[in-house]
Amino acid sequence: MDQRNIGAIEAGGTKFVLALARADGTVLAETRIATRSPAECFPDLAAFFEQAAATHGAISAFGVGSFGPIDIDPASPAYGTFTTTPKPGWSGARYHDVLDRFGAPIVVDTDVAGAALGEWEKGAGQGCRTLAYTTVGTGVGSGVLQDGKSLMGFSHFETGHIPIARDPARDPYAGFCPFHGDCLEGLAAGPAIKGRWGQSLSELGSPADKIELIADYVAQLAVNLILLHMPDRMIFGGGVMKAPGLIPALRKATQARLAGYIKAPQLDPGLESYITAPALGDEAGITGAIALGRRALA
Amino acid sequence: MDQRNIGAIEAGGTKFVLALARADGTVLAETRIATRSPAECFPDLAAFFEQAAATHGAISAFGVGSFGPIDIDPASPAYGTFTTTPKPGWSGARYHDVLDRFGAPIVVDTDVAGAALGEWEKGAGQGCRTLAYTTVGTGVGSGVLQDGKSLMGFSHFETGHIPIARDPARDPYAGFCPFHGDCLEGLAAGPAIKGRWGQSLSELGSPADKIELIADYVAQLAVNLILLHMPDRMIFGGGVMKAPGLIPALRKATQARLAGYIKAPQLDPGLESYITAPALGDEAGITGAIALGRRALA
Repeated sequence: MDQRNIGAIEAGGTKFVLALARADGTVLAETRIATRSPAECFPDLAAFFEQAAATHGAISAFGVGSFGPIDIDPASPAYGTFTTTPKPGWSGARYHDVLDRFGAPIVVDTDVAGAALGEWEKGAGQGCRTLAYTTVGTGVGSGVLQDGKSLMGFSHFETGHIPIARDPARDPYAGFCPFHGDCLEGLAAGPAIKGRWGQSLSELGSPADKIELIADYVAQLAVNLILLHMPDRMIFGGGVMKAPGLIPALRKATQARLAGYIKAPQLDPGLESYITAPALGDEAGITGAIALGRRALA
Repeated sequence: MDQRNIGAIEAGGTKFVLALARADGTVLAETRIATRSPAECFPDLAAFFEQAAATHGAISAFGVGSFGPIDIDPASPAYGTFTTTPKPGWSGARYHDVLDRFGAPIVVDTDVAGAALGEWEKGAGQGCRTLAYTTVGTGVGSGVLQDGKSLMGFSHFETGHIPIARDPARDPYAGFCPFHGDCLEGLAAGPAIKGRWGQSLSELGSPADKIELIADYVAQLAVNLILLHMPDRMIFGGGVMKAPGLIPALRKATQARLAGYIKAPQLDPGLESYITAPALGDEAGITGAIALGRRALA
């Protein structure tokens, strides 16, 4: 049994989940803190891991699955640093600033790549060569893994901002994205749903017409992910995707938009195994952060 | 000097380019044949390479950059086999059926991945870690290379069929894609332009309004490629892209749709180095096929 300790951070727009785990995944300590500026959050991170290390022993590696935009290129001198973001205080903040004091290697990837990795190792993505994990919540983002390694180009992907076909007669809401207005995130993320209808889909009782509208927007990302990545499976998580009926409606809308063009054994007739919710639920992120940390262990 | 011979095939929807080259890229023999059924084309392929080998020496490897859909997974038992296609005779046809007689290893990739590789080795994609090559011609397709290796999931990508935001008041043309109607290919490929306006953009004299319409459709793919792959550069080739003014209009439309969201040194202010025409022009494909063959040399 590997008794080394991993410090794991799942950093989301609303909250941080912090955990100390054994290399085998056993969680020894866990806490949640509200996301504020790094000046406010980082001391809480340090205090938690210092306390956990004092109780359970030194930390051998850190794994971080974080909101972005953030430099996730291990070859970059700015690895682990937030790039330009409107979130107050976060531009230029770096996980290493708070974690270097522990003298352990640090692996940083996006929150969605972390969740994808959690699902790939222990959840709905097991056995997939290419796996796409998308969250639709406060924002929209996707991580794509190939053989368990997250794909990136000059930066991590930003799938929330794809252009969307929108019928203004059906949906007069102009979208809330400060850059694009009615991109996918601007139309289908949590703030768009509340901005348009005053409540979340679940609070509204998941009415069929609203579920179908959001499903068709998310389906346009699903189709783009298929055509530009050909993943073996697609997992859709995040708060918005919890609305009853949204995953089945997403399968239907994706199938309608594909129109039979892609024929492959991966795409089962009703897409029921192809498009799924996360098997680990809200634990996907921290499970993935632990897995990221495991990769830093020699 | 490596004196071994490579047989190279660039297979397009209209024509095949066949070449015999030295491993260093020097072309010894080259011909073009019209694309017909494999029963008609394959004997021409065999005859060309038999003649070329008789003149220049045995062939040590084959490189094929082909139209699809085709199995390009080297681990698959059906590697090099066309999958379901409406093209008469091509479903189930396999390059190995005609090339195995030469007793040389065969590398097969898509035509666009081949062109991307040609540009990466000798053209506009040199030095790019992640490179996207898109053709807009009879059809639309993209190859994405990372460190010179083409990316794929369970199959090669099919970027021509992405959903597109279309304003029917501005463009009443319903699209010609038999699966999706007004997907990108259905609206912007050569047949869509001739179907809508009777002539190609170049024949029409590249009028600004028509150039802008097509540029905005192609820009939606450009934006999706950025957000889902973050390439260091994007090359746009194919017959449609040769229309004067289309590449500059594509840069402008892509920039308008990005709306400043992606900040990276790769994206220069006017996208002039980020979005380019192929430096090798029509030679990108056969150059890439030779490069594919080179990879099969021990």
